[in-house]
Amino acid sequence: MFGDVKFVCVGGSPWRMKAFTEYIAAELAMEDPKSEYPNICAGTDRYAMYKVGPVLSVSHGMGIPSIAIMLHELIKLLYHAHCKDVTIFRIGTSGGIGLEPGTVVVTRQSVDATFEPKFEQVILGKTVLRNTDLDQSLAEELLQCSKELGQFETVIGNTMCTLDFYEGQARLDGAFCSYSEKDKRDYLIKAKEAGVCNIEMESSVFSAMCKLSGLRAAVVCVTLLDRLKGDQVISSHEVLNDFQKRPQILVGCFIKKQLMTKAQPS
Amino acid sequence: MFGDVKFVCVGGSPWRMKAFTEYIAAELAMEDPKSEYPNICAGTDRYAMYKVGPVLSVSHGMGIPSIAIMLHELIKLLYHAHCKDVTIFRIGTSGGIGLEPGTVVVTRQSVDATFEPKFEQVILGKTVLRNTDLDQSLAEELLQCSKELGQFETVIGNTMCTLDFYEGQARLDGAFCSYSEKDKRDYLIKAKEAGVCNIEMESSVFSAMCKLSGLRAAVVCVTLLDRLKGDQVISSHEVLNDFQKRPQILVGCFIKKQLMTKAQPS
Repeated sequence: MFGDVKFVCVGGSPWRMKAFTEYIAAELAMEDPKSEYPNICAGTDRYAMYKVGPVLSVSHGMGIPSIAIMLHELIKLLYHAHCKDVTIFRIGTSGGIGLEPGTVVVTRQSVDATFEPKFEQVILGKTVLRNTDLDQSLAEELLQCSKELGQFETVIGNTMCTLDFYEGQARLDGAFCSYSEKDKRDYLIKAKEAGVCNIEMESSVFSAMCKLSGLRAAVVCVTLLDRLKGDQVISSHEVLNDFQKRPQILVGCFIKKQLMTKAQPS
Repeated sequence: MFGDVKFVCVGGSPWRMKAFTEYIAAELAMEDPKSEYPNICAGTDRYAMYKVGPVLSVSHGMGIPSIAIMLHELIKLLYHAHCKDVTIFRIGTSGGIGLEPGTVVVTRQSVDATFEPKFEQVILGKTVLRNTDLDQSLAEELLQCSKELGQFETVIGNTMCTLDFYEGQARLDGAFCSYSEKDKRDYLIKAKEAGVCNIEMESSVFSAMCKLSGLRAAVVCVTLLDRLKGDQVISSHEVLNDFQKRPQILVGCFIKKQLMTKAQPS
């Protein structure tokens, strides 16, 4: 059932991964109007998984621990199904720094809260540092897709991955806040100067685990707001819905191109 | 709508929190056979929230980042609704160390992977240590409830909270494993010697945030397996389902006693 998988897309929300599956089915002309795409993980409410042709879509919940559990299980699944040359994408949303909301960021390196490109994995109580480099040629190919599409702005840049959405991302609107608006601004400007384009909560462990297991990987997140201008998303529901489709459209374009190239006689 | 809330129960899974709501409604004789308990957070698939009388139930997903986002938003909600004297419980599942599967652990202290009772919160790139003490009198009252119920074993002990389910908890069955079975056993025995009774993934930030915001808090988790004997849960679906109800039954008993005590003329 999984042996033909060549592309995996992971994202936070179950229903958005279902929507992506429907989108990719239409893009690849693989849709069956009568078919519902069944959740392969039905019976658990931890994750949802959908498959259409060579594309597997999986939800991962929020934060490093949640996506790490899913990735352990996904990597085992791909191994036992003898899948080869798999490309994996995390698609999602993020807070931008100094970018127009709606800009798509393809991650060069995932950095921690001190802007270092590393992920700290605790093993038997000891901290092991792991590399968070992503595939640069894949990032460039995605940027090229965006140019061909011409529908929205896409940049390549560093993505800061935090363990916390409020205090960890210098928000002023959480239940606790022990710093001033100036402290927040200074921190975000330092991040920007270190090459950080956006902030999210899963890219570091995703990069580290994909690198360790030899999966070609990219992180593609749209920015919903500019954190230098505020903490709360103020765009309309309609605009946000359009923004959230952008990573799907970009990754969909890439997958379609790849499959068309392979289908051509050499 | 939320002003009368006196008890909050949080747990990983949306459908289990719905099941808890149905259970507590029956226990408190507040059930309405015709009524479906609506998900107050419908329209988002991040969390689910249910309310029956003074009891609010909220799902929190998996891991520290996921529960932290929910707690920030819950604490703000309770504040703006002017709720007073709220008691909050995390109910869930865990891996036990040297305990018969099915034992319920009420947490004394939540400890990290080095068995220290602290939670590291990263704020503007700097690590701040937070205390993870829980309310000892509440833990004792829950233990007393278990004795009165006489249905299952309950102990008070330390709970180790990790950022990762596989390497972080010394499992041998993840996608990667860089240590031997002996290393694993040595680590778990050290944990046991440090007073750790069980391992889960949310108690440290839960304890820290509840303490900071003045919520009386308890962590009540059933053990699904003894990690000294293996990594995989091998009990039958039926047995596991019974185990998973135990924290609900214990917390339900406590809430019922509290409400009955308050209802009596003084």
